[in-house]
Amino acid sequence: MTAVVTRFCQLLSPPKRYQEFHLALPPRRCLRHLVALQFRHHVNLHIVVRSRTMLLNRLHQLALLSVWQSRRAVSISQTNLLSTTTITAVPYNTCKRLLFRQLFDEKSSTYTYLLADKNVNEALLIDPVLEKVDRDLKLVNELGLKLKYVLNTHVHADHVTGSGLLKKRTPGLLSVISLSSGASADRHVSEGDEVAISEYLKLQVLATPGHTNGCLSYVDSNMGCVFTGDALLIRGCGRTDFQEGSPHLLYKSVHSKIFTLPEHYTVYPAHDYKGMTSSSIWEEKCYNPRLTKTLDEFVEIMNNLNLPYPRQIDTALPLNYACGIQGP
Amino acid sequence: MTAVVTRFCQLLSPPKRYQEFHLALPPRRCLRHLVALQFRHHVNLHIVVRSRTMLLNRLHQLALLSVWQSRRAVSISQTNLLSTTTITAVPYNTCKRLLFRQLFDEKSSTYTYLLADKNVNEALLIDPVLEKVDRDLKLVNELGLKLKYVLNTHVHADHVTGSGLLKKRTPGLLSVISLSSGASADRHVSEGDEVAISEYLKLQVLATPGHTNGCLSYVDSNMGCVFTGDALLIRGCGRTDFQEGSPHLLYKSVHSKIFTLPEHYTVYPAHDYKGMTSSSIWEEKCYNPRLTKTLDEFVEIMNNLNLPYPRQIDTALPLNYACGIQGP
Repeated sequence: MTAVVTRFCQLLSPPKRYQEFHLALPPRRCLRHLVALQFRHHVNLHIVVRSRTMLLNRLHQLALLSVWQSRRAVSISQTNLLSTTTITAVPYNTCKRLLFRQLFDEKSSTYTYLLADKNVNEALLIDPVLEKVDRDLKLVNELGLKLKYVLNTHVHADHVTGSGLLKKRTPGLLSVISLSSGASADRHVSEGDEVAISEYLKLQVLATPGHTNGCLSYVDSNMGCVFTGDALLIRGCGRTDFQEGSPHLLYKSVHSKIFTLPEHYTVYPAHDYKGMTSSSIWEEKCYNPRLTKTLDEFVEIMNNLNLPYPRQIDTALPLNYACGIQGP
Repeated sequence: MTAVVTRFCQLLSPPKRYQEFHLALPPRRCLRHLVALQFRHHVNLHIVVRSRTMLLNRLHQLALLSVWQSRRAVSISQTNLLSTTTITAVPYNTCKRLLFRQLFDEKSSTYTYLLADKNVNEALLIDPVLEKVDRDLKLVNELGLKLKYVLNTHVHADHVTGSGLLKKRTPGLLSVISLSSGASADRHVSEGDEVAISEYLKLQVLATPGHTNGCLSYVDSNMGCVFTGDALLIRGCGRTDFQEGSPHLLYKSVHSKIFTLPEHYTVYPAHDYKGMTSSSIWEEKCYNPRLTKTLDEFVEIMNNLNLPYPRQIDTALPLNYACGIQGP
């Protein structure tokens, strides 16, 4: 009762990518071992089994069981019972394939987002903070990911972006910011563009100016969420009293762009100051104390916030305009 | 071109539950209106359409389109073209049906978790913090949820639980803590018990003592996650130098209970001090600097942490032992 199992597998470390294993084990142990490896390395396995009919049926059952327990779906294409059967384990849903991590910088109350497609082990970071680069890179490395893009939603005034330092430490990493921000980057994007890691991890660019001219929101329609930067915060919004701030423009951006996304989409902002980590389009349309007002009321509110001058702005702005290339 | 559409809908406010609407609108507007309502109220609609064949086909198309746009699945059972067609919109997956919110208290670096089943609009809170009760209740109300349970993973030493105040303000709310904690509560649970809101939102109780005797972890197998309290933190664990702390017991709890969960399960701890919001079983098995050690090394580490005496412990402990009933 032994089977020859050929395993084509994307392993984490580059030298092992697409390595092929020939195992001569009892099929039950063999498949258990492979399924365990699959989840240990967060990869998909493509298993080709050469076996006889009875064996195939047992493997089929076992695969379904293992995969069910670990909440993945499996598809088995049986080309010929006496020759080759391909068992392809695919993610249970795209949420499982997509890795999502929200990270926080307590000093500036900034959220940084790590997104990755586990199938290709490539990742992107949104709005990293300079002081947190060590933490973020450690996590990226521990997860066995290759960082491909670092995106900023806008030129930040409250913290220095980690893009430059991340680029120094990560060969091939590309920085992304909006064309209209006026900041340096490897790639400048505009409304309608896409930043893609794979066919499953694609961010659509929405131009949402008002806090600054170059403010972008990034939409992930697979996860059903939007990274709004400072354009829309949880029950709030970014201030409009410095840089190119315009309450009229911000109101228009939120209402004509962000609020037209599906109402169940999760809102992930660049900041929160009250321990809230996410919201939804529906909630902000119903309960945002500023953006549920009329345009005139909104402008009145925004022009009378009387907020203190941002502490880090004089250091942060020049550095952030050189987004991705600061330092020697 | 009008259709009579009967809508059986679980609306948010109790008086409107299962209300039936008879609408005489053009079918396109009618269905759009209903689908919009569905997402506004986070409920499932069961729409019964009585119409002619052509009309049914158009409605069918429109339903599929609307539902596809909003990432829900739809099932349409067409019993008789000339009599009744039932269009049942079901959640795209259970993740969509389950509402999940992570909330943070910056003073004690405590994470509170709000979980709800949108289909029944009932919710539970894990480890609420006294000072954040207003914020948490406001969110629960805005989301149109009824709070059914408030759970504590253990008797906290670093903050006062919000359970008591939440109970005062929420008629019928039941507090939950472990039997072996020695603390008061409406319901005492032990290993193997279940705290259930619905068939989709069920938490299994794991006894994970070591930080305190009564420490529990709550497992949600639909979401694929575990709420570990202070037993397992991200790249760390709770201290074992006060209350009934025992490094031997904690090591055993983590290795024999938490680490035997599927490796892709998300770990949601009760605290984080570095801006990390979640981890996975796999990561902690690989990278936890304490729990990847041998038992002897772990005990040595835990016995030599030399941490300061917890600031809030003398206030927090007596109040938390009276979990859910403090105050007059």
